[in-house]
Amino acid sequence: MTSLADGTGHPALRGLPAVWLRANCPCAGCQDPGSGQRLVAVTDLPADVTVAGVQASDGAVEVIFGPDGHRAVFAAGWLARYGDRGPDGQDDDRTEDAKCLWAAADLGGGIPQGWWPRYLADPEHRSACLSAVLTHGVVVLHEVPCEPGAVLAVARSLGYVRETNYGRLFDVRAEPAAANLAFTRLPIAPHTDNPYRDPVPTVQLLHCLHAAADGGGDSTFTDGFRAAAVLRRQDPAAFTCLTVTPVTFAYADAAAVLRATGPMIGLDPRGRIRQIRLNGRSLAPVRLPTAQARAFYAAYRAFAGLAAGPDAMVTARLAPGDCVIFDNTRILHGRTAFADGRGGGASTGRRHLQGCYADLDGLASAVAVLARDQAGRAGQADQASQAGQAGS
Amino acid sequence: MTSLADGTGHPALRGLPAVWLRANCPCAGCQDPGSGQRLVAVTDLPADVTVAGVQASDGAVEVIFGPDGHRAVFAAGWLARYGDRGPDGQDDDRTEDAKCLWAAADLGGGIPQGWWPRYLADPEHRSACLSAVLTHGVVVLHEVPCEPGAVLAVARSLGYVRETNYGRLFDVRAEPAAANLAFTRLPIAPHTDNPYRDPVPTVQLLHCLHAAADGGGDSTFTDGFRAAAVLRRQDPAAFTCLTVTPVTFAYADAAAVLRATGPMIGLDPRGRIRQIRLNGRSLAPVRLPTAQARAFYAAYRAFAGLAAGPDAMVTARLAPGDCVIFDNTRILHGRTAFADGRGGGASTGRRHLQGCYADLDGLASAVAVLARDQAGRAGQADQASQAGQAGS
Repeated sequence: MTSLADGTGHPALRGLPAVWLRANCPCAGCQDPGSGQRLVAVTDLPADVTVAGVQASDGAVEVIFGPDGHRAVFAAGWLARYGDRGPDGQDDDRTEDAKCLWAAADLGGGIPQGWWPRYLADPEHRSACLSAVLTHGVVVLHEVPCEPGAVLAVARSLGYVRETNYGRLFDVRAEPAAANLAFTRLPIAPHTDNPYRDPVPTVQLLHCLHAAADGGGDSTFTDGFRAAAVLRRQDPAAFTCLTVTPVTFAYADAAAVLRATGPMIGLDPRGRIRQIRLNGRSLAPVRLPTAQARAFYAAYRAFAGLAAGPDAMVTARLAPGDCVIFDNTRILHGRTAFADGRGGGASTGRRHLQGCYADLDGLASAVAVLARDQAGRAGQADQASQAGQAGS
Repeated sequence: MTSLADGTGHPALRGLPAVWLRANCPCAGCQDPGSGQRLVAVTDLPADVTVAGVQASDGAVEVIFGPDGHRAVFAAGWLARYGDRGPDGQDDDRTEDAKCLWAAADLGGGIPQGWWPRYLADPEHRSACLSAVLTHGVVVLHEVPCEPGAVLAVARSLGYVRETNYGRLFDVRAEPAAANLAFTRLPIAPHTDNPYRDPVPTVQLLHCLHAAADGGGDSTFTDGFRAAAVLRRQDPAAFTCLTVTPVTFAYADAAAVLRATGPMIGLDPRGRIRQIRLNGRSLAPVRLPTAQARAFYAAYRAFAGLAAGPDAMVTARLAPGDCVIFDNTRILHGRTAFADGRGGGASTGRRHLQGCYADLDGLASAVAVLARDQAGRAGQADQASQAGQAGS
């Protein structure tokens, strides 16, 4: 055995210090074999933990810790994954770094698409459709039955419905005395939904039951991460302004009074774009000193302009049976105005969508479970067990 | 009328620049009278908007804008709320600034409490109980019926149940082959639930159906915002480390593979504490260069130590019928170990809690609606209409 106080001198330890190794000891006393959860609180580890010895052989690395003589046996490949030179790629893939940013031209004329009957029958197709939401932010599924409530079955297939004050699902159609602009015939600029909520619904679904009879009412989609990245390149000060200025979005009706505060462009601690909040309709009056208010509005206008630009925005006409699924932390959606037959019933072609909300963590889990199942079928059963890192 | 290019020279405009005033014009062409939503996109405002004239009289301030001659009439009091010298206080009250931080001794021996029958009958009591979750992060309601599923009724009274892979509700009791440490008799250190989810459930409810028969199994609560604030004072470098280092939490079982990445102490863009993620059981191995890994573990240990310290942590024994409601972005909960009768049924006193998740935005809305109703009953009906700032 080699003795070395912090472990980092031994090549098999890959630069991982003693405290890291001890905190990640896989023995049954430190990690529950059933659940994969850590059994030992960080406060119960020896404060002065050292590596007293290392023995590497046959793909296993045994570590003896001081001062208490505790022993851990790691798989060498596992240490390599986490050591200094190991690859990245175990984070949650929610920032711009993990996304495929797109301009309208990059999509080749339309958003990624799939077909509901095949989605149900074929796990690979289902995985491809849901993966498109993770990479491109949006997918449209064709041939979803034109039945009220079908959108809930789509949501259920990828996670869990997020119920809100709008209900488990909501109808989007022109109404006589609308409490929300969504329920009028007016055009709607690219926006994220419900920024007055925290947590915001991270996935939105919209299912077309009836298209507008006389043109208009098309849906628009913009990659908000790309629009923010373009702003960062073209006008770094404007980008920074929108990342450091918390603004409040607000909504109130007879049954709800909602408000949430956050920056229009949310970054992770490493400065990567992670969450867009853009919705002119529900932005509460900003509360800033005069010069900052001017700078904020200039930046906001620039960002909204990029989001609505023809090179950024894809227009898609949803046909009856189409259900679009998108990442509401990234994709800005909107619609063109429509005229439509007034007072018409279903048969007149009156535009009618049904929507609901869900969340990205459930969707990403569905994709990961499908991938694990595929790997399992390919005989790589160890991947399933390695994924078992768990906790409440 | 006074003419002044940016408006900021006129005292009635309170330092609010022309672009702010135009973007917040309350006329029926700019703001939907029914919904309160903005009708005009920021990109459709004149880029070179000016204040061409101002006339103030009788509590109203009329502004004529250049270059297009658009007119807006503001209530003077409304402008005063937003101008340079106006009070703060329209954000979502989710950061430390809006909270009442507490140490164990500040609570006078117990967490805030209420009674379910009175909560149902008396809106003021209901408002006080739910407000305690916003200010102190936690409340316990006594006398909730000891019936399976009753926790869902409590959740429904304050918002919407967040369904997850654990279901709409979950049972917390010792199980023979637990997929999660929650379902064992082991002690559990102070933690937030489900940090491997994004969005994390922001409210947790736990309803006691049966207490442990032979002692132990007590619940613990710590104000995580205060623990973070104490760390900031005692060891600023450790605090900063936990705010700038994204870590990944992970969970996997037969039906789910979840991971989410974020800092243990989440700040808003102004540097205020907004979200705690602390859960040793589900922390995935961190991926940091050697020196940073050492610093991270020292900081993590210090924070976890503060959270579990006797001055920070309140211990409460939940009795059958008690339902605790807490802010899962702030309050760290845990439990002491328990022995309990093995294999016992309900009558043996086997510890059994039922839990579910909900969200803070719905809870805050419930409080705001109750406040609006109370104000309405007090004849201040204008407050209700002023709250109407809306959008999807």
